[in-house]
Amino acid sequence: MAQQPHFAKAEVQTPERLSRNRPTAVIAVGGHAFIQKGERGSYEEQSHNADQLCDCLINLIERGYNLVLTHGNGPQVGNLLLQQETCTSDVPAMPLDVLVAQTQGSLGYILQQALLNHLRRREIRRFVETVVTQVVVDADDPAFENPTKPIGPFLTEEVAKQRAKDFGWHVREDSGRGWRRLVPSPRPKRVIQRQSIGDSVAEGHIVLACGGGGIPICVNAETGRYEGVEAVIDKDLTSSVLAREIGAEIFVILTAVPQVYLDFNGPKQRALGAVTLREIEALKAEGHFPAGSMGPKVDAVVDFLRGGGDRALVTDAESLVDALDGQAGTHFVGRL
Amino acid sequence: MAQQPHFAKAEVQTPERLSRNRPTAVIAVGGHAFIQKGERGSYEEQSHNADQLCDCLINLIERGYNLVLTHGNGPQVGNLLLQQETCTSDVPAMPLDVLVAQTQGSLGYILQQALLNHLRRREIRRFVETVVTQVVVDADDPAFENPTKPIGPFLTEEVAKQRAKDFGWHVREDSGRGWRRLVPSPRPKRVIQRQSIGDSVAEGHIVLACGGGGIPICVNAETGRYEGVEAVIDKDLTSSVLAREIGAEIFVILTAVPQVYLDFNGPKQRALGAVTLREIEALKAEGHFPAGSMGPKVDAVVDFLRGGGDRALVTDAESLVDALDGQAGTHFVGRL
Repeated sequence: MAQQPHFAKAEVQTPERLSRNRPTAVIAVGGHAFIQKGERGSYEEQSHNADQLCDCLINLIERGYNLVLTHGNGPQVGNLLLQQETCTSDVPAMPLDVLVAQTQGSLGYILQQALLNHLRRREIRRFVETVVTQVVVDADDPAFENPTKPIGPFLTEEVAKQRAKDFGWHVREDSGRGWRRLVPSPRPKRVIQRQSIGDSVAEGHIVLACGGGGIPICVNAETGRYEGVEAVIDKDLTSSVLAREIGAEIFVILTAVPQVYLDFNGPKQRALGAVTLREIEALKAEGHFPAGSMGPKVDAVVDFLRGGGDRALVTDAESLVDALDGQAGTHFVGRL
Repeated sequence: MAQQPHFAKAEVQTPERLSRNRPTAVIAVGGHAFIQKGERGSYEEQSHNADQLCDCLINLIERGYNLVLTHGNGPQVGNLLLQQETCTSDVPAMPLDVLVAQTQGSLGYILQQALLNHLRRREIRRFVETVVTQVVVDADDPAFENPTKPIGPFLTEEVAKQRAKDFGWHVREDSGRGWRRLVPSPRPKRVIQRQSIGDSVAEGHIVLACGGGGIPICVNAETGRYEGVEAVIDKDLTSSVLAREIGAEIFVILTAVPQVYLDFNGPKQRALGAVTLREIEALKAEGHFPAGSMGPKVDAVVDFLRGGGDRALVTDAESLVDALDGQAGTHFVGRL
């Protein structure tokens, strides 16, 4: 069967297939990019925020990059957990791995719609594809012994302790605002769909992947089967793994601030313009970039550079264009 | 950056890349395949059912087919709608197009996990990829004037009429069991991700696509932008469009019965073994295959054959292997 599709040719977005030699950028954005301060996360809000973000990202496309976009899902999966908790009907609650998959679908759709609309407006012929992504973690990752990541709604102490008893949840009082469930945050080991993602990017398609840090799965040691686990993976660490697996030239983390700072909000605050791998490792050793702040992002960048990556960049969406010109952001340089 | 991933080679599933000349099958399964009679749709139930289904589908892989799997999402999206309705917390309800996207993520994950486990057990090296799929419908499709598809929970007359007033819903009393929302079911025109899906399949990857019939979008006539619409698209019709777009050799619809029947459950019930396009069109013209029964499936098959497709098959999952041997199912033959 070789007939052509029956719709008008002008409607078809054919890719520019001369794209195989473009450099590839993996760009990680936080889930908060789509639900901003004071917003509850309606569809209109998330679509609007996605549209603004994609307006910045298009600059990378126009500069000839192949693009993989990864994203967090903290507030989105928080909303789904709240729905599971407060749904009064007979709908079975889904485990966390399935909820992550749901946010990959919904945020993937919202983002690909926004990207396609920007591409159409500029008459750029590129395909956009969202890949539901599983990420393998080690079943014996120490994180499983010590869950640290608070997720879902705030609960009363009574409810929290009942859940702990009923479902084996880890719970903890959280900063005076109530009790929350804690889940493990194991290290990502590999992205199951890395080959498909790499193939699509090499074809010039824009790929959305690893939403929420990926759906965490383990290999069951007895059966050899993949099994979902109730955990969350840091999206920057997963993006770093993917960037290495597909051989990305540049790894970009978009965050809330235009640059990485030393002594952030302190008397000696200093923005970092460009640093080598050796410099950033020395700063880390001196205690800069604590875990609750830039720590995981710097770790993700260091992993990428140690793994052979050329360059990484941390900045905010608004500064991205200037950063591409070397006029903004914090640039991390690895091997030549 | 050209280094290899750092994990052990034996862990990597590399695809068998000699697959470009394999015939391609598009297989459509209903959402009820994952939530069966008497089940509420827990994760364990859906995973178990997916596992059983994939055990049947592996036969196609072993026979050397490239495979695109499409699926319905009726009961799954029904559960999400019920959650939106009965959630007592402050989480904004998502529109239907976003909920379809959520089910593409969750069912895609459940299915790809099941498929990967079957492939691993048999040591077959194929990649599996779920693509979040948008499908374009015409903004002036007559279905928008006359919504016919009941979705979501049963409501009281009072609530239903209030929703109709508040949100412009179409509502209707449904078979004595309560009132329900009605949404349009427009015809699918084209699958946005057809090229990516086609490329992945040609690489030998197993692709899951068009979940729930696809996320329905329109082109806004004024702005030229893609916009989601609150509608559902028949998954068999969408699968037929995709099968034509990617040039599939065979289109399979898995349903609850092993064959298509004339005079189903009547005194002259007769199973159809094999029919030509001409025969099936004649039977349709005689009034066989009504809309509430096999109608949409037969329409989807006829569209595929008219569009130049070679062969189609309607059967149930249990009969699939025998059907591949010509021993079961209803076979539809198009052009040679």
